Amino acid sequence: MAPNLKSFFQNVDDNAETFIERLRKAVAIPSISAEDERRADVVRMGMFLKGELDRLGASTEARPLGKQPGKEHLELPPAIIGRYPAKKDDSKRTILVYGHYDVQPANKSDGWETEPFKLSVDDKGRMYGRGSTDDKGPVLGWVNVIESHQKAEIDFPVNLLMCFEGMEEYGSEGLDDFIIAECKPGKYFADVDATCISDNYWLGTEKPCLTYGLRGCSYYSIQVSGPGQDLHSGVFGGTAQEPMTDLVRVMASLVDGDGNILIPGIMDDVAKVTPDEESRYKDIAFTMDNLYESLGSKTGIFPDKERTLMGRWRYPSLSLHGVEGAFSAPGAKTVIPAKVIGKFSIRTVPDMKPEKVDELVYAHVDKVFESLKSKNTMKCHLQHSGKWWVASPDHWNFTAAAKAVEDVWKVKPDLTREGGSIPVTLTFEQATGKNVLLLPMGSSTDAAHSVNEKLDRKNYIEGIKLLGAYLHYVAEEPMKE
Amino acid sequence: MAPNLKSFFQNVDDNAETFIERLRKAVAIPSISAEDERRADVVRMGMFLKGELDRLGASTEARPLGKQPGKEHLELPPAIIGRYPAKKDDSKRTILVYGHYDVQPANKSDGWETEPFKLSVDDKGRMYGRGSTDDKGPVLGWVNVIESHQKAEIDFPVNLLMCFEGMEEYGSEGLDDFIIAECKPGKYFADVDATCISDNYWLGTEKPCLTYGLRGCSYYSIQVSGPGQDLHSGVFGGTAQEPMTDLVRVMASLVDGDGNILIPGIMDDVAKVTPDEESRYKDIAFTMDNLYESLGSKTGIFPDKERTLMGRWRYPSLSLHGVEGAFSAPGAKTVIPAKVIGKFSIRTVPDMKPEKVDELVYAHVDKVFESLKSKNTMKCHLQHSGKWWVASPDHWNFTAAAKAVEDVWKVKPDLTREGGSIPVTLTFEQATGKNVLLLPMGSSTDAAHSVNEKLDRKNYIEGIKLLGAYLHYVAEEPMKE
Repeated sequence: MAPNLKSFFQNVDDNAETFIERLRKAVAIPSISAEDERRADVVRMGMFLKGELDRLGASTEARPLGKQPGKEHLELPPAIIGRYPAKKDDSKRTILVYGHYDVQPANKSDGWETEPFKLSVDDKGRMYGRGSTDDKGPVLGWVNVIESHQKAEIDFPVNLLMCFEGMEEYGSEGLDDFIIAECKPGKYFADVDATCISDNYWLGTEKPCLTYGLRGCSYYSIQVSGPGQDLHSGVFGGTAQEPMTDLVRVMASLVDGDGNILIPGIMDDVAKVTPDEESRYKDIAFTMDNLYESLGSKTGIFPDKERTLMGRWRYPSLSLHGVEGAFSAPGAKTVIPAKVIGKFSIRTVPDMKPEKVDELVYAHVDKVFESLKSKNTMKCHLQHSGKWWVASPDHWNFTAAAKAVEDVWKVKPDLTREGGSIPVTLTFEQATGKNVLLLPMGSSTDAAHSVNEKLDRKNYIEGIKLLGAYLHYVAEEPMKE
Repeated sequence: MAPNLKSFFQNVDDNAETFIERLRKAVAIPSISAEDERRADVVRMGMFLKGELDRLGASTEARPLGKQPGKEHLELPPAIIGRYPAKKDDSKRTILVYGHYDVQPANKSDGWETEPFKLSVDDKGRMYGRGSTDDKGPVLGWVNVIESHQKAEIDFPVNLLMCFEGMEEYGSEGLDDFIIAECKPGKYFADVDATCISDNYWLGTEKPCLTYGLRGCSYYSIQVSGPGQDLHSGVFGGTAQEPMTDLVRVMASLVDGDGNILIPGIMDDVAKVTPDEESRYKDIAFTMDNLYESLGSKTGIFPDKERTLMGRWRYPSLSLHGVEGAFSAPGAKTVIPAKVIGKFSIRTVPDMKPEKVDELVYAHVDKVFESLKSKNTMKCHLQHSGKWWVASPDHWNFTAAAKAVEDVWKVKPDLTREGGSIPVTLTFEQATGKNVLLLPMGSSTDAAHSVNEKLDRKNYIEGIKLLGAYLHYVAEEPMKE
């Protein structure tokens, strides 16, 4: 075990309630980045985070990111950046950590069993609340690491740079340019030796992992419009071409129930599975029951673990998210919607090229719509896009993290990829030119982006230890690439 | 012209502003029957209406209709029933009139150019506001007729029975049983000689019509569910069967862009067009430009007036209204919805049998879903159903109304059918055993059920004259069937 870790771990245990209280305060701030009217709460959450760091003596700044693209009345929430210790020690490595302080939308009426913005801890230590696991728990993890080092009077092992954003759940608007600018020589994030992001999840519920790959995401909308306004289906049904009829036919042409993407050419650039890659899936701590538990059903596509993990990590997928502009409330409304917008996204993988994916999507959607011979008007466009990412899990950043996992969890971590996209990962890799590690805190059952999001108390407290231990190991790990 | 009409007409013109003010007060009450939290406003609107009638000396009652089915905490709004003059004159005929005082949902943010619950009159006399034309204008029309008879000191020509409900836009819940019970001997609506309903629209904007047929409506939902909760598409996309994928495929199998219903057998019972019927369409005052104006676009299915009118009146249609449970807001949310409910309805016509339509729908939807071989669960059910209706336009109730139209509008009315359904029409016909007439006030461009609903000042004021004149003619028309 690295020196000083024992007293650090003890101090984290001693302060567990303080750290949970900090998470409770953070969850209470509904920092929903997708809802304009919550923007003040997002900013308030950023300021709360900055305040916690300031109290611990970090050097922090709230950096404005400008107006929100397409919503010029709306200021983007600031990037909260910080350095700890406040003065750089040139004898130590510089580690950049990233997290986000905004959250997904949540309403009690969506089906939450507790108030989404009130941390509710049950008798099994499950801490329910929007943002508990995604990503307020991990973000506060870094704050708690600093506090425990101070309280335990342990020398901080690295120069810690922090970058916490407030728009992750809405496409990280404004962040890329900021990171690229601040990674230039002489700027805030210059001289980074490695990056660590804690914003994903274990594969299951028992075994930690280090993540070295992510799928990309290209999010599209298909707008079909016809009449000048919504129509009464009694008066106009049977006389007007209905946009909703066209839209569902186009949406039905995109993917089948087994997840096969029906857009011609879309699989052409997907990297083939090598025998070496195939063999790696066998040892991963994941079972079909893990899938079924996190699904809450047995509606998986594949019967086996290997193909299921490949489906999540290394094959593209297409999901239909919904329809804007149509009748979406309970009950019965006899409307013919005048303008409907179907939303779908494609998770992309090596070696797909996002621009080519766009072209294939547009060509397919155009062709299908054309085949309908509709008088309505169709427009398909890309709402946002983030590229896939793969790193080397043999890098010293990863081997250091693996040692930290063994110290805290007494087990070698799985080396995994993930199905979700964290576009900023790629940005950090490209802007710093250094390795990026994904070091998750929460588990597969945390229900990020869903109702009843939670973080287990154990994952939070041991996760704080893990983040701290990682900093100690990464400070000393031999620099092999 | 029938005696006394001239002074009645003059009085209506003299009191036009009073009548518009009455409509303004009614529109200001957001009596949305589909929204539970507006129930108090619906009741308030009913009481406003009752108060107006009471002040004119009518005998009125607010009859409770019990709890709302499926929402046992919620009392249905009362039926406001009335008699004028308060004491029955056995020497006069008894005419029952019906209307509804509830309205469709409306939010400014839906695209209204004015506040939906504030009557806004523009310089062309278009009176914008939710409920202006559907159906507060016509309902208040009867009130205004009474007031003008009093002010002009004209003998009231009939025993007027009134039945105004507050749940029309939500399936007229509770009303059928009430009407059937009150039409029995000795009850409130016993001894009705004919019924008149003003709750539909002219075909165009220039020529009034009498309506002798309506399509029925069978409203269905298709629920597809799989996972226990909404999922993150990054984590689960490509590993889980997605309910939305199944739903759009089932929805796409129901109808094509030209309005052809793809459910096998659905057209089998549709009455064939006879040469006699076909010839009647030629004279109807309706042009394709009328359609395009009310559509606000040129996205009609058929190029000619005859087939367009047939598509509206005498052929069934199927409209896809929307999806409940999926992502429906602006922006981009990467959710896999766990449970999605597609809504659609079929407008039915003679001689379709609603129960057979249900069976055909269920069989088709089951078959298509089965063909998907999905592990998700699908349920299709009928939300509500109302049968089509056709009456004889040669009945004295219609010939009297035709004379009233000629008096007021100086033109013979078109005899039309309508595409919408007013299920209560059939109930009144069956419960009274007497003829029912539909006598519209508003025009085709009124945008009932849509944004920017309006009633033209001219249609309102001349419509009041028409309702009054109708009562005079129907009081004296020879009783040929």
